[in-house]
Amino acid sequence: MGDKGFFCKDGLWYCDKLSLLELREDLGRKYSRPTPVMVYSQQKLIDNLKAYQCCASSSIEIGYSMKANNNLQLLKIIAAHVDRIITVSGYEIQMALRAGFKNESVIYNGNGKERWEIELAIKENCLLNVDSQFDANHIVEAVTKLEKEAKVFVRVNPNLNPEVHPYISTGLADSKFGVEIAQLPEVLSILKHPGVKVVGLHCHLGSTIKSIDIFKDAAIILNKLGTKLRQDGFPNLEYLNLGGGLGIDYTGEDVLPQPSDMISAIRQEVSPEFKIIVEPGRSIVGNAGALLVDVIGTKKNVAKSFVIINGAMNDVLRPSMYSGYHRITPLQVHQSAEMGKYDVVGPICESADFLGKDRMLPALEEGESLAILDCGAYCSAMASNYNLRGRAMEVMVEDYSWRVVRTREGLEDIISCME
Amino acid sequence: MGDKGFFCKDGLWYCDKLSLLELREDLGRKYSRPTPVMVYSQQKLIDNLKAYQCCASSSIEIGYSMKANNNLQLLKIIAAHVDRIITVSGYEIQMALRAGFKNESVIYNGNGKERWEIELAIKENCLLNVDSQFDANHIVEAVTKLEKEAKVFVRVNPNLNPEVHPYISTGLADSKFGVEIAQLPEVLSILKHPGVKVVGLHCHLGSTIKSIDIFKDAAIILNKLGTKLRQDGFPNLEYLNLGGGLGIDYTGEDVLPQPSDMISAIRQEVSPEFKIIVEPGRSIVGNAGALLVDVIGTKKNVAKSFVIINGAMNDVLRPSMYSGYHRITPLQVHQSAEMGKYDVVGPICESADFLGKDRMLPALEEGESLAILDCGAYCSAMASNYNLRGRAMEVMVEDYSWRVVRTREGLEDIISCME
Repeated sequence: MGDKGFFCKDGLWYCDKLSLLELREDLGRKYSRPTPVMVYSQQKLIDNLKAYQCCASSSIEIGYSMKANNNLQLLKIIAAHVDRIITVSGYEIQMALRAGFKNESVIYNGNGKERWEIELAIKENCLLNVDSQFDANHIVEAVTKLEKEAKVFVRVNPNLNPEVHPYISTGLADSKFGVEIAQLPEVLSILKHPGVKVVGLHCHLGSTIKSIDIFKDAAIILNKLGTKLRQDGFPNLEYLNLGGGLGIDYTGEDVLPQPSDMISAIRQEVSPEFKIIVEPGRSIVGNAGALLVDVIGTKKNVAKSFVIINGAMNDVLRPSMYSGYHRITPLQVHQSAEMGKYDVVGPICESADFLGKDRMLPALEEGESLAILDCGAYCSAMASNYNLRGRAMEVMVEDYSWRVVRTREGLEDIISCME
Repeated sequence: MGDKGFFCKDGLWYCDKLSLLELREDLGRKYSRPTPVMVYSQQKLIDNLKAYQCCASSSIEIGYSMKANNNLQLLKIIAAHVDRIITVSGYEIQMALRAGFKNESVIYNGNGKERWEIELAIKENCLLNVDSQFDANHIVEAVTKLEKEAKVFVRVNPNLNPEVHPYISTGLADSKFGVEIAQLPEVLSILKHPGVKVVGLHCHLGSTIKSIDIFKDAAIILNKLGTKLRQDGFPNLEYLNLGGGLGIDYTGEDVLPQPSDMISAIRQEVSPEFKIIVEPGRSIVGNAGALLVDVIGTKKNVAKSFVIINGAMNDVLRPSMYSGYHRITPLQVHQSAEMGKYDVVGPICESADFLGKDRMLPALEEGESLAILDCGAYCSAMASNYNLRGRAMEVMVEDYSWRVVRTREGLEDIISCME
């Protein structure tokens, strides 16, 4: 793991060069409510970006998937390192442009685009991913209305099983996403319109994928389809977009394929006439973030022991929503400490509010802090105000220092739209 | 069902006296993005409140559980009809006071209260629900620090199984909530402090409960405990708070116990020396709200047919989170329409984004609207900005007219805390 990102050295957990204990003390001096706080490692973020960037070439483009994390300051850093950004809503398009992504680098994807979102994407010269027959019709209508060309990909449903949680598998026959191969001719016939240029094919298999074989299978399918279509009336088809979905090591014990493994596997199966796009999200931001929380108290009943922290399911929904596992650790680890089994739970008034179950932890003091690791992806992006809890403050660590990249949400922020 | 709330008459769905079709047209004239929109029935809300209110007496108090829905305008209506409000965070306390609840009517409940929240509750003369030994210690510390008395309940874990989804069961032995009966003496000994007055016992069994027997069982347990404690050094113990959790009829075919059934069952088991508190949330707001959405398009593949709407899991998390069922209906129903089986899904880029699976619906046109019923509870309260989607506008219908009670969230609202 080295000395970048979140790591433990001589019993102390660090974010880059700053010990989390020191960070927590700093925050405590500055804020009356210092936690929960999402902590990002700028160095880990950049390292993750570089792991993709070093695979990039004139024929391989990296597109960050914004839905994993949309913090503006993170996006600005990401914009300096990758070619493209993948957006899934009108607001995400606007956010991408605000973060400094070039208009032509933005891909707008989604199975349910509204008219205003399609028109926004076309006006802003973004690329669009066609997901269905009706989506193709809507894009053609917008192109006609705006008298402006649209460059599009067609998302194919390859019917491949990535063997992940059913909620994060998207490339199966019963998925809502993409065009079945049998229906491609129909969709392509709609897109044979003077205002539409089909520049690529796209697929996306799912999320938290641990094996690269499935990317190879998808590459073979897209390569075959693309080759046929180039010869068959779509000479501008130059991109094969294999989507994202590479998992990360949530347990600290997994060996996962690296971006270079995935990309070279894909490259091998794709004819050189095509450029390749990949769309990482989790594998860029996931392990670059951790949520720091404080222990409010501990309790024990006949069945269980509990650590009650001031972070909750509104901050990190993955455990209750997807049975997601996040390592949880004190900021300082004593080898000699006696360990006990605890459920780590938040203050929200329902039983789904847990961050970890049956975790081995030392006896914890009130006020002591814990780090919930690998919270950079799909945590703040899915955060809510359930129980009228404000969303967490976020800070970015750079070497020994830190800066606020999102302020703590106050009651007035939460209810600003209430009349 | 009558002609209040959401009902279908001569093929048209209504909210109170206003047909949803007419409301949708009205909204379309006024807003470029009229949907998704949460629609509340003022009359249904008031009727639900009255169903509890008519059971209220000098010995029975009704406390609305704010976590179900915290819209300020709804809270103001609720404040005019019930005795108390149950809050579960510091911000909820502040919101209750803003909505017009009297300080002494606010109960602050929760398994993980932070110090600032406890101090806020005490300063504001709210009642506190003691959940654990550490919670008791923190309250005593705050009382000492502030030199101000606190009136408290003690939440007991009765270890009763309400037979609901494990995520919404809270009164079992392995629950994070409440004090085990065996541990009560220890907690009570902490609360034997000159600044603390123990005024009641509390329990809460879970959510979506369909049988009142379990409330009876809990009443028997609390009554026995309370009687003993009154004789045993806690003469001020005057309240037994049985919590909330009454289910509602999500299918349109269930016959559920009414508030009066629940309350009279409890009353029978409780000695007249005690006042009773109940804490309804879902059964007050649940069926008083529906989400109106538009059909973006329909698609079909070899395995499934889909209706893609512009509402999503960020608006209504219950289906993917709790396998919650919500009826979904066109605003106008034609008896002769041929029905097909559809998954009703939103535009969010993941497979968990569904509102209903395998639903029998007529063929739907693009732009046609649907109502997702019984969304008044735990929908907007749990809403997020996932995929950078703004939270829905909310309107309140009163007779034939409507007014906005929450504006649609724009990008600037969403990112106002980002630096």
